[in-house]
Amino acid sequence: MAETKIIDLTTPCLLVDLEIVKSNAQRMLNTATEMGVEMRPHMKTHKTLEGGVMMTGGSKNKICVSTLQEARFFSAGGFTDILYSIPITENKIKICQQTIKEVPDLKLMFDSRYGLQCIMDNPRPDGQPWSAIMEVDCGYGRTGIEWDGEEILAIAQEADKCPNIHFMGLYVHCGDSYVAESVEAIHAIGDKTAERLVEVARRLKERGVDCETVGTGSTPCCNQPSKKMANLTEFHPGCYIFNDYGLTLNGSCARSEIAIKVATRVIDYKKSKNVILVDCGFLALSLDGIQEGGYGGMCSIQDHPELKMKAMDQELGKLTAADGQQLDFDKYPIGTLLYIYPFHACHTAAMHPVYYVHSGDTVVDKWTPTRGW
Amino acid sequence: MAETKIIDLTTPCLLVDLEIVKSNAQRMLNTATEMGVEMRPHMKTHKTLEGGVMMTGGSKNKICVSTLQEARFFSAGGFTDILYSIPITENKIKICQQTIKEVPDLKLMFDSRYGLQCIMDNPRPDGQPWSAIMEVDCGYGRTGIEWDGEEILAIAQEADKCPNIHFMGLYVHCGDSYVAESVEAIHAIGDKTAERLVEVARRLKERGVDCETVGTGSTPCCNQPSKKMANLTEFHPGCYIFNDYGLTLNGSCARSEIAIKVATRVIDYKKSKNVILVDCGFLALSLDGIQEGGYGGMCSIQDHPELKMKAMDQELGKLTAADGQQLDFDKYPIGTLLYIYPFHACHTAAMHPVYYVHSGDTVVDKWTPTRGW
Repeated sequence: MAETKIIDLTTPCLLVDLEIVKSNAQRMLNTATEMGVEMRPHMKTHKTLEGGVMMTGGSKNKICVSTLQEARFFSAGGFTDILYSIPITENKIKICQQTIKEVPDLKLMFDSRYGLQCIMDNPRPDGQPWSAIMEVDCGYGRTGIEWDGEEILAIAQEADKCPNIHFMGLYVHCGDSYVAESVEAIHAIGDKTAERLVEVARRLKERGVDCETVGTGSTPCCNQPSKKMANLTEFHPGCYIFNDYGLTLNGSCARSEIAIKVATRVIDYKKSKNVILVDCGFLALSLDGIQEGGYGGMCSIQDHPELKMKAMDQELGKLTAADGQQLDFDKYPIGTLLYIYPFHACHTAAMHPVYYVHSGDTVVDKWTPTRGW
Repeated sequence: MAETKIIDLTTPCLLVDLEIVKSNAQRMLNTATEMGVEMRPHMKTHKTLEGGVMMTGGSKNKICVSTLQEARFFSAGGFTDILYSIPITENKIKICQQTIKEVPDLKLMFDSRYGLQCIMDNPRPDGQPWSAIMEVDCGYGRTGIEWDGEEILAIAQEADKCPNIHFMGLYVHCGDSYVAESVEAIHAIGDKTAERLVEVARRLKERGVDCETVGTGSTPCCNQPSKKMANLTEFHPGCYIFNDYGLTLNGSCARSEIAIKVATRVIDYKKSKNVILVDCGFLALSLDGIQEGGYGGMCSIQDHPELKMKAMDQELGKLTAADGQQLDFDKYPIGTLLYIYPFHACHTAAMHPVYYVHSGDTVVDKWTPTRGW
């Protein structure tokens, strides 16, 4: 059978550059080693066994997942130490109880007294304690218990005392780093998050509660780690495996570190509107990034800074001139392959039932992600 | 085995109301019958065999698809007369040639001299002519040949003369109806589109070219058909099978005609930010609609007009008060089921590997859509 080349693929499709994806995974493993921190990479961006193997350096141990379907999928694929990093609720813990045979090494996260109570009230069916981590809010303001109050100490002490819980420690998603406007700003968030998390751990230690895990994650902070993050024990970013155009905007990654692109072809023009039509609609790219400066902010076309996305329908993308000038359509014959860097890898990857992994212009593998909840 | 109730489902998930979806399908069939027009429903919104059966009134004949994967899926499922309603290009027609054994009843669309030439140069491998329809631009300005020039007549005449083409007639997507601001404005677009399409057909007839099919589609125009649309032969809308919140905004459908909802549960609060957290992030709802007035414009929460979506992450949605006032959190205990009407059914449905079909509060079926290209 002949080799498949990128040019042989039906468009649109999602390409994963093997060298870049490997290098992204290895660079983060190196960072963690240099900083003396363990990795617990998040699987939510790619949701593939192959990506998980790369991110864990082949160990298939210590991961985060964002859905119970991911937990089942990775457990079936031989992964161990799986943290379900969504605040636990009664509805979800009942499912966890049912699926503990499929996912024996499932760990839980709670971020409120309610969540802790859920775990207390719903023990593991096998009589083992639930391993559970407490989510802290170090200023991002999404989920987690506020780092600076008394409540967080009281809840952690209660968890630590509970016989059916193995209290793991502290978890924070420093998502505020996504809207930081520079690497310096990312460093400031990394330092602030680490300081606050370490302070919570210190106060807990004073009260006799040990946090074996004190970890943070977010691709901006972990791609551009600040010094004080070395005081933590664990990093759990996810998006870095692919990176994306959005992450280049504040220096979280370089363009050369983006591992995924949507391949698309020119299929038509609407010359009266100065538009090139491509076969990449929102079903191939998603609309993520549209909130950042309109359609023009939502992607970047490789080697074509003169083009921007003007609008998207389900299966059609409309490219126009970035500078508003008249396009020279002859430069883009029908059939021309273009490669679109997505604004947000997590949403774009989720649109694709298969990823085509390539080395140079040769397709060397296909990765099949899991989907659903 | 006990009946499954909606309350037993893992959230988030996509619910399809059986009575509404049936009624949406039947209403459109009735409209077409009353107007003396045939239906060629579009499968792109739901991509399921079950939805296709309903939309064709059980005949499984005469459909539109938006991807070649849909063509293969529906053909394997027993559907016939399948129009691939994307402007044909060389890359895609090569795939059509290879898959003609799988999809013997595939019909093509061209919208330029280039597209016509593609069909001429790439005959069906079985020696039969390609059935092909010409896409017309009646003012929407996306794809299609402009209705009012000489070029459209010349291209159609050429297609009609070509021995390896069975020229079917005219196709237009009147997508401008989506941004119409009232039913009257939708009617005006329907009338304008029909007038122009009929005029093209008349001018072609003068030149000896018969258009057996003169059709238009778009859910707004076909849900709210104008009188002159009775002069056409075919309707090909798709989204009406589900309808959505976006379509209610200009009167294209009533709230009671929306067949799909994302079921989600309250999982937490961030009281300091006046936020209720639900387990419906952009992976369950998509970000479609965010371009219409920000996050608040992108969905509607059933029976809770006091709530709006403030922001979304991958697996978390943040609801806040629509009027900016302080929320009474006690009204929304953790675990509360909420149902979100999506802004755009096509994007939301595409996020789900399975749809849960319910009658009242009982889950009666699961539909599995096809994905990819």
